[in-house]
Order: sequence, then C-alpha cells, then structure tokens
Amino acid sequence: MSKRSVGVSLPFLMPDAGREAGPLHRQLYERLREAILAGTLAPRSRLPSTRTLSRELGISRGTVEEAFAQLDAEGFLERRVGSGSVVALPDHARGPRSVSARGPRFVPAHGGAKAASLGGLSRRGRRMASDVLPAEPRDVRPFTPCLPALELFPTTLWARTVAKQARMLEPGRMTAGEPEGFRPLREAIAAHLGPARGVRCDWRQVLVFASTQQALDLTARLLLDEGDGVWLEEPGYLGARVAFESAGARLHPVPVDGNGPRVEVALARAPKARLAYVTPSHQYPLGVTMSLSRRLALLEHARASGMWLFEDDYDSEFRYATRPLAAIQGMDVAGRVLYAGTFNKVMFPSLRLAFLVVPEALVDAFTAARAATDGHAPPLTQAAMAHFMESGHYAAHLRQMRLVYAERRDALLDALERETRGELQLGAAEAGMHVTAFLAEGLQDVAVIERTDARGLGARRLSPLYLGRGRRQGLVLGFSGASPAGLRAAVRTLCGLLDGPPRQPLRARRHASAAGSSPPSPGTRG
Amino acid sequence: MSKRSVGVSLPFLMPDAGREAGPLHRQLYERLREAILAGTLAPRSRLPSTRTLSRELGISRGTVEEAFAQLDAEGFLERRVGSGSVVALPDHARGPRSVSARGPRFVPAHGGAKAASLGGLSRRGRRMASDVLPAEPRDVRPFTPCLPALELFPTTLWARTVAKQARMLEPGRMTAGEPEGFRPLREAIAAHLGPARGVRCDWRQVLVFASTQQALDLTARLLLDEGDGVWLEEPGYLGARVAFESAGARLHPVPVDGNGPRVEVALARAPKARLAYVTPSHQYPLGVTMSLSRRLALLEHARASGMWLFEDDYDSEFRYATRPLAAIQGMDVAGRVLYAGTFNKVMFPSLRLAFLVVPEALVDAFTAARAATDGHAPPLTQAAMAHFMESGHYAAHLRQMRLVYAERRDALLDALERETRGELQLGAAEAGMHVTAFLAEGLQDVAVIERTDARGLGARRLSPLYLGRGRRQGLVLGFSGASPAGLRAAVRTLCGLLDGPPRQPLRARRHASAAGSSPPSPGTRG
Repeated sequence: MSKRSVGVSLPFLMPDAGREAGPLHRQLYERLREAILAGTLAPRSRLPSTRTLSRELGISRGTVEEAFAQLDAEGFLERRVGSGSVVALPDHARGPRSVSARGPRFVPAHGGAKAASLGGLSRRGRRMASDVLPAEPRDVRPFTPCLPALELFPTTLWARTVAKQARMLEPGRMTAGEPEGFRPLREAIAAHLGPARGVRCDWRQVLVFASTQQALDLTARLLLDEGDGVWLEEPGYLGARVAFESAGARLHPVPVDGNGPRVEVALARAPKARLAYVTPSHQYPLGVTMSLSRRLALLEHARASGMWLFEDDYDSEFRYATRPLAAIQGMDVAGRVLYAGTFNKVMFPSLRLAFLVVPEALVDAFTAARAATDGHAPPLTQAAMAHFMESGHYAAHLRQMRLVYAERRDALLDALERETRGELQLGAAEAGMHVTAFLAEGLQDVAVIERTDARGLGARRLSPLYLGRGRRQGLVLGFSGASPAGLRAAVRTLCGLLDGPPRQPLRARRHASAAGSSPPSPGTRG
Repeated sequence: MSKRSVGVSLPFLMPDAGREAGPLHRQLYERLREAILAGTLAPRSRLPSTRTLSRELGISRGTVEEAFAQLDAEGFLERRVGSGSVVALPDHARGPRSVSARGPRFVPAHGGAKAASLGGLSRRGRRMASDVLPAEPRDVRPFTPCLPALELFPTTLWARTVAKQARMLEPGRMTAGEPEGFRPLREAIAAHLGPARGVRCDWRQVLVFASTQQALDLTARLLLDEGDGVWLEEPGYLGARVAFESAGARLHPVPVDGNGPRVEVALARAPKARLAYVTPSHQYPLGVTMSLSRRLALLEHARASGMWLFEDDYDSEFRYATRPLAAIQGMDVAGRVLYAGTFNKVMFPSLRLAFLVVPEALVDAFTAARAATDGHAPPLTQAAMAHFMESGHYAAHLRQMRLVYAERRDALLDALERETRGELQLGAAEAGMHVTAFLAEGLQDVAVIERTDARGLGARRLSPLYLGRGRRQGLVLGFSGASPAGLRAAVRTLCGLLDGPPRQPLRARRHASAAGSSPPSPGTRG
C-alpha cells in the first residue's frame, strides 16, 4: 500500500522522541496537516495505510489511527473502508505561506504603531494606533512623574488583604460582577470623596474603572460624535488628548495661566464645544489651581449650554500648603460634571482601579456601555480595595504619603534653587507629585531629555503637551518616587547637563531640532 | 461685629457633636459653603469675625479660623485684615439646585439605558447605551448558558496561587504593566494554544484582555469605520453584534446551517464586508461545526479581498465526541485571522482574563490602542493565571471539566428525550456548555422564558439572537453549571411549563406577543 502513496516522505513524518515535542499522535497529526497545507501532499493523493505507517515509523497503530481520525474529523482526509485515506484539501487553500509566525521582526510598540503597519486599519484605527501616548510609568527613576513612593507602600498589609479576599472565593463571587463596579467599593469611594474632596454623590453615581484613561475613553465615546468640539487645557494631559482624538473630536486648546485655563478665551474661540477637560485642583502639567471665578464661569457655561465638564482630579489629595481644594463637582448645580479619580497613583500603578462619578442621568448609559465594551473590573481587587478603605488603611496611607511627598518636594525645590543658575524657572508646586521647570531661552527640551534619559533621570518633556503653537520648552519633574537624597543627586546630575561643557552642544543642537517644534514663546502661558 | 453680618443664622452653623459628623472645622466649612452656594449667604455679605463665631458657637477660635482659611483658599471668602470676611461668590453660581443627589430615582440599568436618559449622549453614545446586551452570567441557575461548574473549581488552589503572587509585590511589579499583557502569561497561552487548538503563533502575537467583549470592542474600533460591512452568523452571539453596532458597522446576517455559516450566501450578499465574525469550532448558539470547505472558502476570500476574520473560540475546549477541532487560525496563510479565547468560561466569570491572537502586522496597532483605551490588565491576576498554567493546574482543570460537562450534557439530553413529547427539537450538542432547543410550531420563546424565569431556570431566548427576519423560536439551555440531578429536575420543571395545563395560556399569549417578533420559520436555519 505504501507504494501507491504519492509524495509522502516517511522520515519527514518521524516523530521526535523528546518529551517537549508532545504526544506522538499529535506530532504525526501536525506533520501531516502541515504537509497537506504546504502542498507536500497533493490533493487526492493517497496516504499509506495506518498499518504501513505504524510499521515504518515504529509507532503503534493506535497512535496513527488517532492522528488519522483527527485529520478526518477536520476534513483533511477522506477515509474509505478498504481503499485507505485520500488527501481532501481543495486546491485553493495553498497560497504562499505568509512570513512565518516564528521568529518574526517584532519591534517594541510603545509610542504608537509604525506607519508601515497601519495599512489594514480603519481610519479610526489609524488615528488610535498612531497616537503617541507615553505609557504609564514603568521606570522607577528619580524624576518619573506621578510615580508613588513604591518602597513605602504597605505591601504586606495589602498582600494579606488580597489573600483574604481570594480565600473568600465561592460560587456567589465567581459569577460575573456588575459593570458599575463592586458595591462596597463604590460606597467606600463615595464616603471618602465627600469629606476629602467635597464631591457630592450617591454611591450609585460612582462607577469603577481600570484607569482614568478608560473613564476618559468611554466618556469620549458616549458623549462625543466625530467632529464635536472639546476644550483641552494648553498645555495639558496627553492621555485626555489621545482619548478625545480617538473619538474623532475637534480639539480646542485653552491657554492656562496662573489661575488655570482661560475660560473666556475658550468661550470666544469655541463656544459650541460639547465637553471641557479640566484639572482644576492641580493643573497638569503646570500645577496651578483654577480660580473660583473661572470655576464658576465654567459651571455656568456648562449649565447654560449643556456642555459636559470632565474634572480629572488625578493627584489633588496631595496638597502641601493648604488643605486640598474641593472639587468643582461639589459646586455643580446642573448635573454637568463627570469627576474622575484614580487609585493607581495613591496606591500603585499596576493596581488598575480608578473611578468616575457621573451625573445621575448618565449612570444607565455608562452601565450599558461598560457591559458592551469590556464588562467590568475584577471583583477580587475591587473587594480588596474596599476592605483597605473600610479598615482605614487607605486614609492612613494617604496621610503618610502626604508627609513623605511634602518632604520630597521640599528636597527637590531646595536642590533646584541651590544648584541651578537661571537655566530653570519653576512652575507651581503647592500640590501633587511633580513640578514643571521651564527651560531658559535657548534650551530645547528634546535635547535636554535626550541627555537626562541617557543618565536615567526619568524626566519628561513639556513641549509635547502643547497642542498648538507657542510651546514652552520645559521639563516635567516628578518628585514623589525618589528619596530626598536621590532627588538631590538627580538635580546635581541634571544641572551638570544644563550648563558647563555639555551646554554648548545643547545650544548647538537647538537649531537642528527646531524644525520639528515651534520656538519657545514664554508669553503663551499667560 | 455679628450685627453687621447679613442673613447668617448662627444656630444653622452649629456643629454636631457626634463623631460621625466629622471634625468641627470641617462641619463649619461645609455649612458655610453650602449656605454660600444656596444663596443663604448673599454675595458681598459680611461674615461674623472668627472671634464672634467662636464665642457664639462655643468652639475654639482655631477651629473657626481653619474653616475660614479653607473657604478663603477656595475663593468663597475674601478676608481683609481689620474688616473681616466677605462672601465672594459671584451671583451666577446660584441656579436652582438640581434634583438632590441623595435618594434619587435609581433604576437598575441592565439591558440598556432607558430612552429618557439618552438625551445628553452623542449619536454614537445612544447607539452604545441602547443596545441590549444580556449581561454575563450572574445567576447560578440550572440552564444559565456558559456558566462553569463553579462548585468544582479548585478555589483553595487558586487562592493560594493569588496569595503567592500578591506576596511577591515589590516595586518592580508595582509600576504599570504592558498593554500587550504579562509576558509569562502570553507565553503560557501560546504554548497551550498550539497543541490544544492548532493555533500557530509567536507569544508576541498573544494580547491579554479582560474579556472577549473587550477584544471584540477594540477590534471593531481598530479595523472598522462607520458604515463598514460585517458578516455575522445568523443566529449569532449578541456580544459581537453589540460591539460591531457600537462601532457603527453595517451588519450582514449570514444564515447558519448544519455546516456552519453559509459563506456563499454572504459572498453574494455582501462581498465587500471588511470583517467576518465566526465561531467555527462550535457555533453560538446552534452548536454546529463549520465544515472544512467553508473554512477554506472563508480563508481564501479573506486572503483575496483583505477581509478580516474574527474567530471566537469561546468554548471549544469542551468537545465530547471527538478531539477539539483545530482553529482556522492555524490554516490562515495570509495573516487575516484574529483568534479570541477566554479564561472566564474555563475558570470562572469574575476572573476577567481573555486573550486575542492577532496577525503580526496588527500587534503594534493593538498595543498602541490598548494603551490609549484602558491601559492593561492587572498584573496580579495575569501572574496568577500564568503560574496556574505553568504548573499544570489549568490543563488538569480543563480535563476534569471536560468529563464533568460530558456527564452533564448526557444528563440533560437524556432527560429531555425522556420528558419531552415533541415540544422541543434539539440542535447539535457535541461540544460546549449549552444546547439549543427549538420550540415546536406555535410556541413563542418570549412567553416560555417568562415562565422559566419565574421558576428560576436560567434558560435564554433564541429568537433575539437573530438579526433579520425568519427567527426561529427556541431556548438556549446551558448544562455546564448544574449537577445531573439539578438538570433532570430542571427539565421536569421546564416540561411542565411546555405542556399540560400551562401550555394553553402560552399558546394564547402567542398572538399578543407576536407583534414584536417575526413568525417562526424553521426553514431559515438551512
């Protein structure tokens, strides 16, 4: 019978003996299928009988039988009693095999997909894939912005809390959770936000997300159509820009001065915008606080026009000079404010828990949309977080971090004051986890960051956070993730890169790199 | 000084003594702010001095001072040395306060937001919020589809695995994770999928998601523009329909017969569709397996036209008659197949881990889009899952569940055969976690489900899974979540609802409810 078979190279089918190669019948099945798909075995060609193959390959007939049965079940063979098996694959299945999936040219994707690979995407997909979103902090560097003091996190306490919740797994907790979030966590968040942030809400308005980014993304999709206008602070948070761009919104930069975003400018330029993204408690990245009169003007416009306000209260629990300022959500008389906060900064970034307080009228829509997009956040971490809050550990950790970050901020500011000679001008630093340092005329942040990156400082550029022209050159310097000594050392390194010998090359580079960015124009901050 | 104050009701400011009311300065701050916002304190009106208030309220001056300082910081007061404090809130902040956020009319939102509350949404948002997506199983009922045997899950082993990972939390694991997923989990998935499902991929093509729904949603946004055509199996999975509808796609139902979706019909009706959603291993809900010739026709069309194929391999690990059929992803010669699988069915629904194997050319785009939408899945559960797979527990659990579900399936089929008298006609049941039962002519599933719901059976309607006309009436009966005895009892209950005394009212109801749905037309399945 083996003489009648066409093109079957028996050694080719010889299974490997090693354990890693898997069971023999599986190997045989795979090699035969591969041969059929590759055309090594032509259509209608006849295979050796299971008896012949068994003998020639030195494996049991049952093993061969199992491989053939599987190929038969999948339609690769037609088995006929008495006349053996025939390859059944139609002709058109044998196109040239694409670049092998083994050992392909993979390139890290952070910072947007390469233009070359955007071909098969939709227009919307190209927009989403080409946006350059700096990833959340993955590097523990002295100046990495928004990085908590990970070494001071009560990991043992948290591990115990998680383990306790994991042990409580029983069928009632194994079915799918609620798209809105785990009720005890929503209640704990609502109870915290009232006194801590002046947010007024019923727990049913609190929706749990993985991150502020997810809350932004869902908000953009639910509240905006393509072409709808959005006010964005200028400079502002890239994550918000990316979310609104992904949704196809038209972005209107609103210049930020010492009192926050200039609402009157926005009103004049884009009165019909559907949504405004603001960070009133602690503007990102400039660190200023939005004045009460601007908050009220914004709320009044939202009330009168039906515009939505997205209040991103990302790090305002950390205020050093006075108590944290209350959120504008608590002043909203018309149900126009969506208030976002996150645990990924107070706790740790890989936690993946954030929340959004929405006006009552939007609860149902967000719930339905959440079910249709990813379902819900994992109940395990939600339950652990709820327990952490209820038992007071969260408030205690917040209090401790407020003291720690105040000390770190002071260390950074003192060191900068001591070490710099006019190369840097600092922005507001009364709150939060970072400070923005404007570069003196003539210095380009792209060139400076190239050097600080090479030294592992973890600072970020300011100028890409501008949407329009008139970008200021500067550095966003986190201070929460490093010890005072670490910050002092980092400042010395930084200053060594700004003046002295390395400075001239930086100046020289300015002209070469200026083509890609607008010239610094300090006036645009005001 | 207190005489010059306008409209201040001092008793109104009297703090509560109870501990729950919070610190005195906080209470005073809140009452003053409330009075300012409500207009009880008119703009420009003068407040009593801190000394006066302190005396009249019987609290320390430092406490009053603290409240005033906070109001001052937030711009609600202007404090002038020597002349006291003046209310600084501009007039326009005092619109009528909206319906109080306390005690509002909240209605459970499952099944789409009410039309009344869709007013402020975008067109896209209204589409997303009004889609009726039956939530993932939250009820543990005998017939709940796709519900695992939760009582047989090795909870202790899993809790230990999670606890171990939680204890390993250190700064290197606390920073944000990778949008693509945790590498050890991606490697474990790739290693499992090759032998188990015939999927050919490098681990770098494996992306981790919270759920198949999230993978569907991101796929729809990345690969489809509004108006793009999508082939959907008819009847088919609602989650897929909702994801593609949310993305604004034009849906083309492709009738399913005993060999899966009729590709030739789809080609004739919508040759330019950009994507096809298929469940080739085990069609949802009918349970049939797609024939090899149709798989090849689909792959060939995808190769030639550039259409994408989304292969949802949601429960095909559970095959009882023969070995699981290999995925079409493994036959794809042109890099057009996206292969989705989930752990939420094999493990438990609240786990929140699923995966998508994408062609190499799409890896970068998915990575960038994931960063821009929600970030990444929690590393804790990803690490636990990876460990569970590496240590062999996952494969062991799969094997055990395959035996358990086979027994449950047999129990269900035997009971149905024994108890029914022609009211039900069963679909394919060689695999998976459910079977579809078509209702005899004259029975409407909406009416039957009303009765089964009242008895807590957990069955689902078949007819809403059709997109077009010619819907068949039927029930989707899960069998994986209940014991054989539980299934037998449920079948007896079901049959009591189908015939005998309750049957007449059902028939009578048919006409009343028929307005909303097309008449049953058995021919459309072929």
